[in-house]
Amino acid sequence: TKRYSITVLPGDGIGPETISVATDVLKLIGSLEGIEFGFQEMPVGGSALDLTGVPLPGDTLSAAKQSDAVLLGAIGGYKWDNNPKHLKPETGLLQLREGLKVFANLRPATVLPQLVDSSTLRKEVAEGVDIMVVRELTGGIYFGKPRGIGTNENGEEIGFNTEVYASYEIDRIARIGFETAQKRNKKLCSVDKANVLEASMFWRNRVTAIASEYPDVELSHMYVDNAAMQLVRNPKQFDTIVTNNIFGDILSDEASMITGSIGMLPSASLGASGPGLFEPIHGSAPDIAGQDKANPLATILSVAMLLKYGLGEENAAKKIENAVLDTLDKGFRTGDIYSAGNKLVGCKEMGEEVLKSV
Amino acid sequence: TKRYSITVLPGDGIGPETISVATDVLKLIGSLEGIEFGFQEMPVGGSALDLTGVPLPGDTLSAAKQSDAVLLGAIGGYKWDNNPKHLKPETGLLQLREGLKVFANLRPATVLPQLVDSSTLRKEVAEGVDIMVVRELTGGIYFGKPRGIGTNENGEEIGFNTEVYASYEIDRIARIGFETAQKRNKKLCSVDKANVLEASMFWRNRVTAIASEYPDVELSHMYVDNAAMQLVRNPKQFDTIVTNNIFGDILSDEASMITGSIGMLPSASLGASGPGLFEPIHGSAPDIAGQDKANPLATILSVAMLLKYGLGEENAAKKIENAVLDTLDKGFRTGDIYSAGNKLVGCKEMGEEVLKSV
Ligand SMILES: CC(C)[C@H](C(=O)O)[C@@H](O)C(=O)O
Ligand SMILES: CC(C)[C@H](C(=O)O)[C@@H](O)C(=O)O
Repeated sequence: TKRYSITVLPGDGIGPETISVATDVLKLIGSLEGIEFGFQEMPVGGSALDLTGVPLPGDTLSAAKQSDAVLLGAIGGYKWDNNPKHLKPETGLLQLREGLKVFANLRPATVLPQLVDSSTLRKEVAEGVDIMVVRELTGGIYFGKPRGIGTNENGEEIGFNTEVYASYEIDRIARIGFETAQKRNKKLCSVDKANVLEASMFWRNRVTAIASEYPDVELSHMYVDNAAMQLVRNPKQFDTIVTNNIFGDILSDEASMITGSIGMLPSASLGASGPGLFEPIHGSAPDIAGQDKANPLATILSVAMLLKYGLGEENAAKKIENAVLDTLDKGFRTGDIYSAGNKLVGCKEMGEEVLKSV
Repeated sequence: TKRYSITVLPGDGIGPETISVATDVLKLIGSLEGIEFGFQEMPVGGSALDLTGVPLPGDTLSAAKQSDAVLLGAIGGYKWDNNPKHLKPETGLLQLREGLKVFANLRPATVLPQLVDSSTLRKEVAEGVDIMVVRELTGGIYFGKPRGIGTNENGEEIGFNTEVYASYEIDRIARIGFETAQKRNKKLCSVDKANVLEASMFWRNRVTAIASEYPDVELSHMYVDNAAMQLVRNPKQFDTIVTNNIFGDILSDEASMITGSIGMLPSASLGASGPGLFEPIHGSAPDIAGQDKANPLATILSVAMLLKYGLGEENAAKKIENAVLDTLDKGFRTGDIYSAGNKLVGCKEMGEEVLKSV
């Protein structure tokens, strides 16, 4: 039998609840498919801060590096919001991404027919939306130096960061963008602000150069302000979007909200080699944590991405995706996606229903 | 009689058409209110490039500086899209903003009852939206140094920009934010990415410090990715938003598209003293330029902002706003906001109808 070791990072807020349900699904799939999963649970984020004083303990990172894939719940909470930067839960997540060198973040934003009414967009605008945002994850202004709070030559206090991309960083994320588009509708839209920023002009030059390797993909370029508008005006025009770290942060969240069901959306973060990092795109939702109200489907679908992109187990991934769709077809809904006529369930019960449908 | 000198910058694309209609409205208002306007028309953007070789001729900037207010149409077009940075139409606009020191950009995003059906958002989500985005306009990553395309210490080619804010820059835009909120619903939301960027942590610290001067305004903070989501989920939660240059570029465009009628939205850019710059937020729309199809209402409403914020002529401003509403009530619509049952008109005819309603 195949054997994979999975590092499980429940994190904060609703993370532990959704992770518990999602790992149950993974275990069941394993037993059905003849795959054995070994789980190692480690702390990250606020819970790691409380336990060890740092948001990413060295043990957590080395366990993650040695495993075949990393499954993360969510991080953050009011409690740690005013911590200094090196003691923020978010810093642990950034260190994890950097440590695992997972430069490519895949964020699908899909409107499921069952949930089209959850979108705040008119039905005819929302239905059929199926976008994949490929976000650069380990470079740009998130990691660029110099950065800090200091004093300028006039003695004024300043806060500063550096947006910087080297050619190899753009080339490799561009290739992921083109390859992702190849498996979809062969349309790639690269988003930048090349009418103002040199970093974006360079980005556009490199993406255009790489395009010659993928003659079957239709490449377009769009300014980020226009992209933010077009996602609202007509999201169906997009197939695959590739963009930098900060624009990807903003646009993927906007795209996810356009689907109306952010509790449904998974993500995969991949490197050139080594384990990938899989997590729901929603946050830790401290206001509903521990109340069995969270929607576990984003974490369950993150497990499907883990199987597909992390381990190459496409069959097992497909089974999970189908089980989620079946569960929705049967009318089960957590509060965030509930609408009249359906059955309101909590996090655990939703998990049990998915298990039944696997 | 009062006398004001207005620098008129028609610019590119649909700019000249909408400016011609808008200045007619200004002239009529002047004759009704006993105000005399002197107009000086100057080139900027692509048309200035074609005429003089630079996107902001020195004569244009000095005329603008010496006038009481500057009215701009739109700039840019496919023709100049691949120009090097210093020869881009956009660079002329940035130089104009910098030269006039107009650090505060006010961008209203209002859903008019007459046009609620133009929004792609569901009616109950869109109706009543009334947001003012206060965007910092002469700092941050748009102007920060160092910037460029060069080589790093490993010999790799890089593109880089600097996001930087000094305390005085944040303090003055924060004050405009608070004062704007005071005249509205007294709710100010400051948008940043303080969980990742030092420039944003510093921004948040300064905005929080300035808040003590405005105890009557309720201040909140939001991360930019969340703001991009919340604008889609429930735009009515926002009253006044204050944010930096790049986040303001993205979020104000997103907010404008949420109204569904970006052809309706004006903007004002103000400095500490000296003339303000007034322009529609839409672009130069080269695809419909010269066809008498453009919606002139955003430029006409920019004239209203010019009167109100630039010259302190609130009565005259109000008359223009009312004339625009009357014209909509009568059912006149350009193509971009047309819906069945209304009267489709071109740019000129829309202008004539507004003149009749003044
Ligand atoms: C928590 C935060 C640091 C993170 C980011 O900005 O990348 C989050 O918003 C995300 O998109 O995963
Ligand atoms: C044309 C461009 C330079 C400009 C900007 O980014 O500021 C535009 O998008 C705007 O928002 O006025």
